[in-house]
Amino acid sequence: MKFTINRDLLLDALNNVSRGLSSKTPMPVLTGIKIEVSKEDITLITTNREISVKVVLNKVENIDILEDGVCVVPGKYFIDIIKKLEGDTVEFTLFDANTIKIISERTTFTLISLDYSNYPNINFSVNSEPIILGSKVLKNYIRQTAFAAGVNESRMILTGVCLETNQNKLQMIATDSYRLAKKVSLSENPYPKTKIIIPSKSIEELSKILEDESEDVKVYFANNRALFEYKNISFITRLIEGTFPDTSSIIPTEHIVEIKFNKPLLLSTVDRASLFTTQNNGSIIKMSTDANGVVQIASISTEIGKVVEEIVPLNIDKKGHFQIAFSAKYFLEAIKAFDGTEIVIKFTGELKPFLLTSPDDENFVQVILPVRYF
Amino acid sequence: MKFTINRDLLLDALNNVSRGLSSKTPMPVLTGIKIEVSKEDITLITTNREISVKVVLNKVENIDILEDGVCVVPGKYFIDIIKKLEGDTVEFTLFDANTIKIISERTTFTLISLDYSNYPNINFSVNSEPIILGSKVLKNYIRQTAFAAGVNESRMILTGVCLETNQNKLQMIATDSYRLAKKVSLSENPYPKTKIIIPSKSIEELSKILEDESEDVKVYFANNRALFEYKNISFITRLIEGTFPDTSSIIPTEHIVEIKFNKPLLLSTVDRASLFTTQNNGSIIKMSTDANGVVQIASISTEIGKVVEEIVPLNIDKKGHFQIAFSAKYFLEAIKAFDGTEIVIKFTGELKPFLLTSPDDENFVQVILPVRYF
Repeated sequence: MKFTINRDLLLDALNNVSRGLSSKTPMPVLTGIKIEVSKEDITLITTNREISVKVVLNKVENIDILEDGVCVVPGKYFIDIIKKLEGDTVEFTLFDANTIKIISERTTFTLISLDYSNYPNINFSVNSEPIILGSKVLKNYIRQTAFAAGVNESRMILTGVCLETNQNKLQMIATDSYRLAKKVSLSENPYPKTKIIIPSKSIEELSKILEDESEDVKVYFANNRALFEYKNISFITRLIEGTFPDTSSIIPTEHIVEIKFNKPLLLSTVDRASLFTTQNNGSIIKMSTDANGVVQIASISTEIGKVVEEIVPLNIDKKGHFQIAFSAKYFLEAIKAFDGTEIVIKFTGELKPFLLTSPDDENFVQVILPVRYF
Repeated sequence: MKFTINRDLLLDALNNVSRGLSSKTPMPVLTGIKIEVSKEDITLITTNREISVKVVLNKVENIDILEDGVCVVPGKYFIDIIKKLEGDTVEFTLFDANTIKIISERTTFTLISLDYSNYPNINFSVNSEPIILGSKVLKNYIRQTAFAAGVNESRMILTGVCLETNQNKLQMIATDSYRLAKKVSLSENPYPKTKIIIPSKSIEELSKILEDESEDVKVYFANNRALFEYKNISFITRLIEGTFPDTSSIIPTEHIVEIKFNKPLLLSTVDRASLFTTQNNGSIIKMSTDANGVVQIASISTEIGKVVEEIVPLNIDKKGHFQIAFSAKYFLEAIKAFDGTEIVIKFTGELKPFLLTSPDDENFVQVILPVRYF
C-alpha cells in the first residue's frame, strides 16, 4: 500500500472523518482510522459505535496511488502528524503488517499500525427514499434545535432531536421538558413520510461537517439508523428508539401579555442580570412589567446583592403589573438561537409556559417553563 | 462615600489591582478590593499575603468625588459588573455599613460589601535606594528567566528568580536544577548592591501589569519584601529567604562541538519530533550529528512509532559523530525565550550540560542538562 496526496486535501478529509473517532473505548482499534486504498480511490473510515463516518477521495491530480491495501492508523497521532507537516505532499507507505512510513520533505514518521482484522465491518448503505435538504438549511436547523435537547440519559428519548416529515412539511423538535425548540418548514415537493429521533450529540457532530452553502445533503433512514450523504462524506448515526412525546399541547396558542424586544438590548440586559445567579439559586432571573409599560429585569442573591435594570420594550400590548421568573441560562440560549434583531415573547400566566418568536425568523418557536419564585 | 468615574479608567485600574486578589483563602475579606476615597483620590488595594497591589486614581476630569469613605467590595463580582456595564460613567455609592449601589445608564447593581474592619493593614512603603529599570526591559527579563524556575516547593529557594546587582552589573537567574536561564546587563551608572530572590509566581504577576514601554519601574527591597513602583501602581511581594545556589560553575566555558541553527526551523523540527513524546517517556528527544555535518533530530515511542528529521545547520564547527538526548519541553521553552532568528548551541559532552545562546540576543544564556538515553 502506497500513495502520495496533497497535505491540505488529506487534512480536510481527516477533519471530517475524525467526527467518528473513539477516544475512550474498550476496543483500541476504534481509536484508529481505517484506510482502504484501491486503484481508484482512498477511503477513510471511523466509528465509535454511535457514529460512523466515511470519506472517499477519488484519484485526482492531487492524489497518486502506487499500490493498494488496507490498514488502520492511530487516529489522534496521524491527524497531529499531518497537521504539523510542512511539505505540500505527503507520501504514505505501508511496509509490512504493521509499519507505516509517512514522509514529507525532511521529515520521516514511522507509525505502528493497529490490527485491521479487528476493525468492525460497517455498512454504509441505508435503503430508503431520501429527504434532500440544503447543507446551510440543515446546519441552521441543528443550531436552532439541538441545544434544547435533554442531557439526562434516564429520559433517553429526550436526548434526541425529533425529525418529522409529513407531505410538504418538515419539522425538527427538541425538548428537555423544561424548554422546547421547534423549527418547521414547507417544501414545494412532498417529502417521504417519517418520524425519527436522532441523538443530539450525533447531529451536532454532523453539523461540524456541514458547511454554509447550498450543496445538498441526502438523508436516508431505516432500521434505527440514519445516513447523511454530503459531498464525498457518508455519516451514519444510530437512532433513538421509542415514541417522542406529543408536544403540540405544550405550545401556547393564546396569551395575556405580548412584549416585543430589541434582541441585542434584551441579550445584554439578561446577561448582566445573570451575573449574580449561580447554580445554587438555579440561575433564576425575574421579569416584571408596570403600568407604564416599562419592563424590569432583576436578579437577587442573598449573599452578593441584586441587579435591577429597566427596558422600554419596542411594544407591549397590555400595560399593567405582570411578573414571571425563569432560568437565565435557558432564556439566554433561547434568545441567541433566533436570527434577526427582534424577539416577541407571549406570556400566558405567571406559572405557565411562555412562547418566544421572532418576526425576522418565522417557522421557529421556542417555549420555556417558568419557575415559582415570588 | 460617593464618586463617579469613567468606566474604562476604573476597569484598567481593576485589571491591575486584581493581580493581588485572593481566590482561595481562609480570610473571606481578602477576596475583596479595599476602596479608600479621600477628597483628592481613590485608592484600590488587594492582597493575598504573597502579593499586595495598590492603585491610586487622582481626581481628574474623569473622576468626581462627592463624599469620602472606606469599604471592601467583593472583588470578582465588582470586576465582572464593571466589565459588563454599557455606560461611559459609573456612579458608586456606599449607603450604609454594607450596601453599595453601582449605577450606570439603565442598570442598578446593589452589592453587599465585606467588613473592612477585618481588612489587614498593608504597609506600601519600603525604605531603600531604588534600582530603576525601564518597564519594557524588566518585562523582557521576566519573560526570559521566570519560566526556568522550579515548581517543587520542597526546594523553595529554586521557585524564585534571583535578582543580583553589583556595581554596573544587573543579572537575573532562574534554575530548577535541570535547566538555567541567565540574563545580564550593564548600566552606565552603578546600581545599589543587592541580591534578592523573588517568587517566580509574583514576578510573573508583576509582568502582566508592566507594559512594553520606556516608563520607569522603581524597585525597592528591605526586610524580605520588594516594592515595585510603576505609574500609579505599587506592587509588593514577599521575598524568598535563604542563599541562592552559586550557578557560575554550571555554565560551561568550553565545548567540543558548536552548532548554529535557524531558530524557526529548529523550533518546528523539535515541535514535530516531540509529537510522540509523552510524560511517560519523559518527553525525550535525541539529537545527533554525522560526518557530513548534518544534524538528525529523532524521538521514539515503543507504542506509537518514531520521528526522524534532518537539518542542515547554518554552521557546525566539527563534523563527525556526536549524540545527546534531552527534554523536548525544556528545549522548546529555551528556544522560544530567545529573541532573534539564530540559536547557537555549545555541547560539552554527551552527558554534560549544554549552553544555548543567540548572536541576536547577547547577555542571555541558557543551560540544559541532558539525560542518559543511549
